Amino acid sequence: MHKNEYGSLHIKNLTSHFLRTIMSNLFLLVPLVGCVSISSAQQSSLNLMPVPSNIEVQQGRFVLTSAFDVSVRADKNDAVLYRAVNRTYQTLNRRTSSFFKTQYITPSAETSPAQLTITVRSKTSGEIGVDESYSLKVTEQNIVLDAATTQGALHGLQTILQLVYKEDGKFYFPLVTINDKPRFKWRGLMIDVARHFISLDEMKRNIDAMAVVKMNVLHWHLTDDEGFRVESKQFPLLHERGSNGDYYTQAQLKELVKYAADRGIVIVPEFDMPGHSQSWFAGYPELASLPGPYRPGPRTQWQNDHPDPSRPPTRSIADLIKNMVSPTFDPTKKEVYKFLDKFIGEMTTIFPSGYIHIGADENNGMAWKLNPEIVAWMKDHQMQTTDELQRHFVKRVHDILKKHDRRMIGWEEIYNDKLPKEAVVHKWIPEGNGLTKSYGTANDFASKGYNTLVSEGFYIDIFMPAYIYYNNKSLDSLNQTNVLGGEAAQWTELADNENLAGRIWPRAAAVAERLWSPANVTDVDEMYRRLFQLSIQLDEQGLQHLSNYERALRRLTNNAPTDNLKTLTDVLTPAKGYKKLFAKMTKPTNETQQTAPLADVSDIVFCDSETKWAFRRGVGEYLKKNDPVLENLLKNQLIIWRDNDAALQPYFQQSTRLAVIKQHSANLHDAAVIGIAALENIRSGNQPDASWQQEQLKKLAEYKKSFGETELEIVSEIEALVNRKLSPLPASFPVF
Amino acid sequence: MHKNEYGSLHIKNLTSHFLRTIMSNLFLLVPLVGCVSISSAQQSSLNLMPVPSNIEVQQGRFVLTSAFDVSVRADKNDAVLYRAVNRTYQTLNRRTSSFFKTQYITPSAETSPAQLTITVRSKTSGEIGVDESYSLKVTEQNIVLDAATTQGALHGLQTILQLVYKEDGKFYFPLVTINDKPRFKWRGLMIDVARHFISLDEMKRNIDAMAVVKMNVLHWHLTDDEGFRVESKQFPLLHERGSNGDYYTQAQLKELVKYAADRGIVIVPEFDMPGHSQSWFAGYPELASLPGPYRPGPRTQWQNDHPDPSRPPTRSIADLIKNMVSPTFDPTKKEVYKFLDKFIGEMTTIFPSGYIHIGADENNGMAWKLNPEIVAWMKDHQMQTTDELQRHFVKRVHDILKKHDRRMIGWEEIYNDKLPKEAVVHKWIPEGNGLTKSYGTANDFASKGYNTLVSEGFYIDIFMPAYIYYNNKSLDSLNQTNVLGGEAAQWTELADNENLAGRIWPRAAAVAERLWSPANVTDVDEMYRRLFQLSIQLDEQGLQHLSNYERALRRLTNNAPTDNLKTLTDVLTPAKGYKKLFAKMTKPTNETQQTAPLADVSDIVFCDSETKWAFRRGVGEYLKKNDPVLENLLKNQLIIWRDNDAALQPYFQQSTRLAVIKQHSANLHDAAVIGIAALENIRSGNQPDASWQQEQLKKLAEYKKSFGETELEIVSEIEALVNRKLSPLPASFPVF
Repeated sequence: MHKNEYGSLHIKNLTSHFLRTIMSNLFLLVPLVGCVSISSAQQSSLNLMPVPSNIEVQQGRFVLTSAFDVSVRADKNDAVLYRAVNRTYQTLNRRTSSFFKTQYITPSAETSPAQLTITVRSKTSGEIGVDESYSLKVTEQNIVLDAATTQGALHGLQTILQLVYKEDGKFYFPLVTINDKPRFKWRGLMIDVARHFISLDEMKRNIDAMAVVKMNVLHWHLTDDEGFRVESKQFPLLHERGSNGDYYTQAQLKELVKYAADRGIVIVPEFDMPGHSQSWFAGYPELASLPGPYRPGPRTQWQNDHPDPSRPPTRSIADLIKNMVSPTFDPTKKEVYKFLDKFIGEMTTIFPSGYIHIGADENNGMAWKLNPEIVAWMKDHQMQTTDELQRHFVKRVHDILKKHDRRMIGWEEIYNDKLPKEAVVHKWIPEGNGLTKSYGTANDFASKGYNTLVSEGFYIDIFMPAYIYYNNKSLDSLNQTNVLGGEAAQWTELADNENLAGRIWPRAAAVAERLWSPANVTDVDEMYRRLFQLSIQLDEQGLQHLSNYERALRRLTNNAPTDNLKTLTDVLTPAKGYKKLFAKMTKPTNETQQTAPLADVSDIVFCDSETKWAFRRGVGEYLKKNDPVLENLLKNQLIIWRDNDAALQPYFQQSTRLAVIKQHSANLHDAAVIGIAALENIRSGNQPDASWQQEQLKKLAEYKKSFGETELEIVSEIEALVNRKLSPLPASFPVF
Repeated sequence: MHKNEYGSLHIKNLTSHFLRTIMSNLFLLVPLVGCVSISSAQQSSLNLMPVPSNIEVQQGRFVLTSAFDVSVRADKNDAVLYRAVNRTYQTLNRRTSSFFKTQYITPSAETSPAQLTITVRSKTSGEIGVDESYSLKVTEQNIVLDAATTQGALHGLQTILQLVYKEDGKFYFPLVTINDKPRFKWRGLMIDVARHFISLDEMKRNIDAMAVVKMNVLHWHLTDDEGFRVESKQFPLLHERGSNGDYYTQAQLKELVKYAADRGIVIVPEFDMPGHSQSWFAGYPELASLPGPYRPGPRTQWQNDHPDPSRPPTRSIADLIKNMVSPTFDPTKKEVYKFLDKFIGEMTTIFPSGYIHIGADENNGMAWKLNPEIVAWMKDHQMQTTDELQRHFVKRVHDILKKHDRRMIGWEEIYNDKLPKEAVVHKWIPEGNGLTKSYGTANDFASKGYNTLVSEGFYIDIFMPAYIYYNNKSLDSLNQTNVLGGEAAQWTELADNENLAGRIWPRAAAVAERLWSPANVTDVDEMYRRLFQLSIQLDEQGLQHLSNYERALRRLTNNAPTDNLKTLTDVLTPAKGYKKLFAKMTKPTNETQQTAPLADVSDIVFCDSETKWAFRRGVGEYLKKNDPVLENLLKNQLIIWRDNDAALQPYFQQSTRLAVIKQHSANLHDAAVIGIAALENIRSGNQPDASWQQEQLKKLAEYKKSFGETELEIVSEIEALVNRKLSPLPASFPVF
């Protein structure tokens, strides 16, 4: 290990470590030890994610010792606060091995002076829209955290945990003054637990992660065609027949509500209706528009189970959206509303949130049109279109929720010109996507006076890299008065209990920052620097995204060594967009089943390659400075990539699941060879040879193609070495 | 990768992978591909752990395809069985990516023929002592699992999961005929959740692991001085004041009971009394023998909180055992028994098991002797010794349990000559340990007609390697009629939620095999071969022992690369015996606190070094055969160890927690240098140089010493290279 201007570089043979070393040494502790090329944005935000609305960094340190203790000035009955203070305190104790002398922070500790003083002016719990601001001042002598509410204090505690640094065996906080508050009051993550059931433990770990990045709403998509995940005592056939045994008991639901509230997070449940409702009808077919039997399963299932020669099978995704008959509530039956009234009443005893999400998305009206009684009812009621019937249903459900003192949220399909003003419209359909017509822009809804939530551009299930979401501008030009905020949305057709964490995290943190930090915090490189730091912090706090990846690699090699495979998979990402999903949906095979294993390479690689970002950073710096140390680092990396393909050959032979990425391995080899040649050309000092460049770029363009539903991520950076210039990132990728 | 007589060797630069490669290629698939030096014991047991009581292996294979399905002939209401069948089915689906066409195995599947047929003759649930036998026959056409009971079928399903092999991209079962049943009906794991609280999730993962190795009793040590971990509605101050907030709600307790029952495991709760009971008195001091106040904490705490100049502070562990005043129930008060009656009654609504463990261990009577009223009461009742008062207390509690239809279990301290015959005596004190006098041998108890449980020699918290427990003979020469079985015992003074899995697993599997397999299954090398395979299977099924280790290493390097550190820690084990624990107990500092972080190197390294075992195996084979390929593998490994010390120096500078193992790193370097020289001597063909050998052995003896509460594990194998002969393993190590 030798020191140089990039800090201490460990020269390793292992790709990810090697590159993490570049990253961490170039950018990690830099503001504090003084170094090159650090923008003021990096200086001021340290490793904090989301970036606070206001931060000043001073010279100096507060050093952690075993004497570190906490006094709290707050409502002594604020159990949520005291539990959070103790969690933070023990995390610091463990991370730093300080062996704190004080064991527990209790209300009686208030009177004694302490190194960290926490003041909370008002006890709050689980409300959306309270004052979440806090201020934090670290001096050499002490730390003062001040918050208007319990929720603000919880955020401040997370900031404290992100402020710990280490040097020469000592842990310390840099001296900072932070005044922080969120840009939006609703910073949500939607998790779909219907398509694949997610265990309570995994939900808890996701809540822990949300708290780290100051998200405050878990939108829990609890029911869909594929599964009804909630125990109902009123209507037990809902979970008994609608879940294949995978549901949460009411005790578990309550436990999670409390677990989330302890971390400043409100759970807003979604019960999707009138469509996306096949699982309801497995137990109660009489609620449906068309006769059963029904069983939980994908949208295509009912139509497959009830073939009708007069209707051709669904062939394309556009056709599926427009013409597929999917199970739908019968909005003309009184019994339906009686049922929903009772069911909603039961759910309000579990979910204290003032909001309930009713979905209401993607109902093409086909099931209604096929039922002559419904058609007759529409005629009787002077309805021309199924849109009017949808309006009728939404209004009835709205009134039921209102009776139970809940505000209705729905996806934008709830919108119509008579929608009650207290409804919240959840925008999701990307404008001009060519497949699904939007019901209006977010600004339309907000301008008309509706509280609006935005998930447009925040669908993290389409496998885009984090910067795409980070650059999403859909919140910027809105009538801000009525915009509550936004939500990252994770649908789970292609995610299950074992890959969910790696699908959501760390990417969702980019959305969290977009929702919390000021609109002018937009530096992508700087975001990625902090994102990969955060990833390790999330792992420390128990999230399984990193270990699930390692475990999945061991499974793919059948427990043979995984490092050569990891050298390749570390630079692969899932193919971007909905191609894989739509292929599965329109060609029903074993693979569309919920039980189909999600254990292919495309299922386990991350959407952001840390190695790519480190390499990109290294290439960018090298092209600017022509530094021989960086050149050597890049060359070593390229040699590892070049030589990896030969070592992987036996793996491709042993496993059909690995054979599908064989082409990427060969391409990585070829790209590395080109990269090494490009480095040599640069070193030679000669002018670039245009025909050689053309030839290489043509080859490289091929390597960007998708194989085995994955994409090779370092091709643009090799192009940059050939071109001697780093091109900007693509602003977007095709979704379909 | 090239083929040779040891199979396919991947030459890697990474120690553990390198050596796992030796292991897996030498021994993994060997019986099926035909290879050298495989004993018939290895042949016949495949990778199964525990080894079945009877197994025959035939040539040929059953190949898994997407057509694999299951039919069940059993009670259609056996929900436990159907859930287990589906879990197994989905695990196979995921592990092999077979995309099974059948989604779920339901009772209606009985009629159709299937590749796997399961017959269960009697539905059982959660009883100890039912017929747990099963037979399994795999032919090229189909698989037949036959079991007398549900529990037997669950064991057979675990065997199926351990029988999957892979070759040339195809997964298959070898053809076997297995007739299996357990040696003992009680195969337990005791987990102490009082000293450190263990989360419900971690308990579930441990239950999953227990099921894999066919253990059937979770003995849950729920209360002790340090914590009362059970919610009581009758006496809410028990958990409110006795747990520092860390307890299981009744809903959670019930959930775990069901979770365990689903996996064929009975939960037997332990409520320790009359000693080890400080946490009870935090809320109810009136139950104690001496006045309060009380708070949950280590044994030494009450005496420290109530200093008495007439009693010198406890200085040694022997003194602590004999003279320490530790909180104890007052056995002379009627209110105590009324309280316990009500409390036990409440607990029986949560724990359906027919057994309750009352602890009753380590009461030296000091608290009783110091209370004049108790002394007077003893006099009134003609009791000469506190042993007689203990007898009185045990009898009263026995009668309370009996009233609630529960059999009493207690540690051997419940034994006395009037103990009711239906009590179960739990043997734990090692005979002749020099510190604690035993109450009799296991054989004494069994011969006198008491049902007996054995944990003598199965205390896995004393950091011994697995073979020590595997070689434990304490069950062999007993009056078998009354011996129920045994339990591995994991106390948690030095284990918490983050290192518990690595403390228990995979080692506890060696105990599980001792309790399940025939007494003549004793080959240690063969056990280790399977143990490290099992470790990966446990990881696949969700156990966090491997990922917690990786995470802890990242914490130790402050997120710098961990591979050099891992090269060292992979060959370190915790110092064997109770030295660390006793040092903490007798010198009260911050480190005795329950909140003290367990994140040092000694807290995270495994008790069995897989690298050591692979290296040992390699050295043994090499010394037998003088094979140049093996010589090269060993030499590469020695070079890695030699060069690792230099790379680690900056880490020792950066971290005081790492600096404590600096000496081991230097010793590993020196030992490797000696090993390389020894290899060269052997290759030279010269006779050994006796004086050189003497000199090296003297140095090597030094390297066996403990530093930083850890020990270097590969020294004996270097000695073997110097001596040209592998010495047998030590039969035991000192505990104190």
